[in-house]
Amino acid sequence: MSVTTPQGFLASGVAAGIKEGKPDLAVVVNPGPEFSAAAVFTSNRFQAAPVRWSQQAVKNGQLQAVVLNSGGANACTGEAGYADAIATAAALAKQLEIDTEDVAVCSTGLIGVRLPMDAVFAGIEFAVAGLSSAGGADAATAIMTTDTVPKTAEYVDQAGWSIGGMAKGAGMLAPALATMLVCVTTDASVPPAVLDRALRAAVSLTFDRADSDGCMSTNDTVLALANGASGISVDEEEFTTRLAQVCWSLARQLIADAEGAEHDIEVRVTGAASEADALEVARAIARSNLFKCAVFGNDPNWGRVLSAAGTCQAEFDPEHVDVLFNSVEVFRDGQLGEDRAKVDLGNREVLVEVRLHAGEASASIWTNDLTYGYVKENAEYST
Amino acid sequence: MSVTTPQGFLASGVAAGIKEGKPDLAVVVNPGPEFSAAAVFTSNRFQAAPVRWSQQAVKNGQLQAVVLNSGGANACTGEAGYADAIATAAALAKQLEIDTEDVAVCSTGLIGVRLPMDAVFAGIEFAVAGLSSAGGADAATAIMTTDTVPKTAEYVDQAGWSIGGMAKGAGMLAPALATMLVCVTTDASVPPAVLDRALRAAVSLTFDRADSDGCMSTNDTVLALANGASGISVDEEEFTTRLAQVCWSLARQLIADAEGAEHDIEVRVTGAASEADALEVARAIARSNLFKCAVFGNDPNWGRVLSAAGTCQAEFDPEHVDVLFNSVEVFRDGQLGEDRAKVDLGNREVLVEVRLHAGEASASIWTNDLTYGYVKENAEYST
Repeated sequence: MSVTTPQGFLASGVAAGIKEGKPDLAVVVNPGPEFSAAAVFTSNRFQAAPVRWSQQAVKNGQLQAVVLNSGGANACTGEAGYADAIATAAALAKQLEIDTEDVAVCSTGLIGVRLPMDAVFAGIEFAVAGLSSAGGADAATAIMTTDTVPKTAEYVDQAGWSIGGMAKGAGMLAPALATMLVCVTTDASVPPAVLDRALRAAVSLTFDRADSDGCMSTNDTVLALANGASGISVDEEEFTTRLAQVCWSLARQLIADAEGAEHDIEVRVTGAASEADALEVARAIARSNLFKCAVFGNDPNWGRVLSAAGTCQAEFDPEHVDVLFNSVEVFRDGQLGEDRAKVDLGNREVLVEVRLHAGEASASIWTNDLTYGYVKENAEYST
Repeated sequence: MSVTTPQGFLASGVAAGIKEGKPDLAVVVNPGPEFSAAAVFTSNRFQAAPVRWSQQAVKNGQLQAVVLNSGGANACTGEAGYADAIATAAALAKQLEIDTEDVAVCSTGLIGVRLPMDAVFAGIEFAVAGLSSAGGADAATAIMTTDTVPKTAEYVDQAGWSIGGMAKGAGMLAPALATMLVCVTTDASVPPAVLDRALRAAVSLTFDRADSDGCMSTNDTVLALANGASGISVDEEEFTTRLAQVCWSLARQLIADAEGAEHDIEVRVTGAASEADALEVARAIARSNLFKCAVFGNDPNWGRVLSAAGTCQAEFDPEHVDVLFNSVEVFRDGQLGEDRAKVDLGNREVLVEVRLHAGEASASIWTNDLTYGYVKENAEYST
């Protein structure tokens, strides 16, 4: 399952002792025959050491293995931390008898703390010994931090190729304290340039549209590996669609497991003059703490939806906007609409729709409510 | 005191019955001899009816009276709500035998609900009957919503002129659900154009730098009235400085009374290439929910400070940044600094300083922590 759904890929997850008693180190290996790789990283200017290393490693469009750890982000650790990231890659490369430059590194956990390298080295040896074509689930478990469940997804095509993936965290451009790490594999034959285009397109439609708390991590990484083991070349558009499907499943799981959240909210903006306008308005609403608190309180508060929309530059006439909560049109054409008592926000899934009446474009951002649980988790957990 | 500190001004605050049993309507009257007025309004595109009305009324730089109510924002109430705002101004004008166009209106409270106009009219009559040169405190009390204390400030110059002010709410460009309403008066002789410049300058240095929760109201209004009753013309620079001093006192009180807050946080960015850079970084930090939760948990979490700073375009080298919590340099020159255990966040006031080492400019944004109390208040209170 997960990253080992596609033919050929090997994975494992072990308890290396980076954090006490829990699985904390995963290895994913691509034995070939092809080694195409692509990646998208955080745009935060404080990039963690493993991000800096992996950017270099993936530059030539080739990777043969990835080592991922929870229990320490190796961020803001200076040149010593950068050396640790390289040493981590080198240790796995040595075990696998491949080049260090063909190994990517992903880390998540506390910022500003050096990794216990002895534990990392021992863990890598242990993980390599345990590599298996059934190891995807263990790998997905080993990268969890505040996640309550492992996240995996797959697409299996009847023609004989597939995509598998695993993820941890809660967002992309804007993850919660839990950095988002994603690794996606495929046995389709996909040249690096195509894989890169497909991954960027898929990410922009999925992880980029999940915004749990508006914050951006130093470690976010989405990796894609393609080994061509199926011998099948897939049409780029078809591949991109299926990759986006797998990424969407993972993104949706991230939102569903966001820290302390009690509602998963789709903010859908329709009738926009452009997709960019729709996204601007949806993002502004998704980032309003007042709105997010209202949903936590099961309050279909269209006033807070409008207040957030009103901060945007998007084209629309404030006098002619509609707001719907779970399809009940509580605000219609700039006036009070249906009785808000008709809205039931008792279920976990909430759909807020804003109709701008300015065009034909639409887009959604997925977010969560702001709860006591979010405050508790983030007041007590030290990143 | 407050708006009645300067000579000549009359004020009162009454329980009009807009909200049950509590003072909810205030009147401030400038009997002259001069009627200079200036105002700054919310930049939200969903402007409440009283904002739309008051923008028209103040356009000629003259006002003779202001009526302010809590218990209803008269926002998103369509043309009927706009007619209510005008009727409110007209009712006070009639009582005072002045022109409707010389009366500003400010409202705060629930969005999307029409005001009970009978109560408003009766309240205005009652308030006018109670107008007094000692009515400033009552007026400040009548405009409270979720505020726990009235906010007033004054500056008295030995030369014989003064400034007084009152405020309610919790921010300006970014107030909490409690709309920010401010009314400032002076008996200095200040021409409208000077008053306008002075007010804009003062607001940009004070209310604009208080950002409690990143949200923007539909009703925010800052009004300034000058009657020249002291007969003293004050130098523009001197007047601006003193006006900013009064506005700063009010802004600081708003932060201190922000909903559910347990810490008042100054985010100070120094060593910036420009003031705009310093403000960009300070605002990004002040808006990070993860940072705000950490302060609630008394956690000097410099990692979250850096993560927020890293989303900015401001000029700085991420490898050479310092972070100080209450003057303890926990992160220095891109590396771990002093022991974070030395930081005590037990007091209400917290100073977070970020040194960018990119220039000589600096600026601060004041904000609050994100607490259970904030979530509770905003999940249960329906705006």
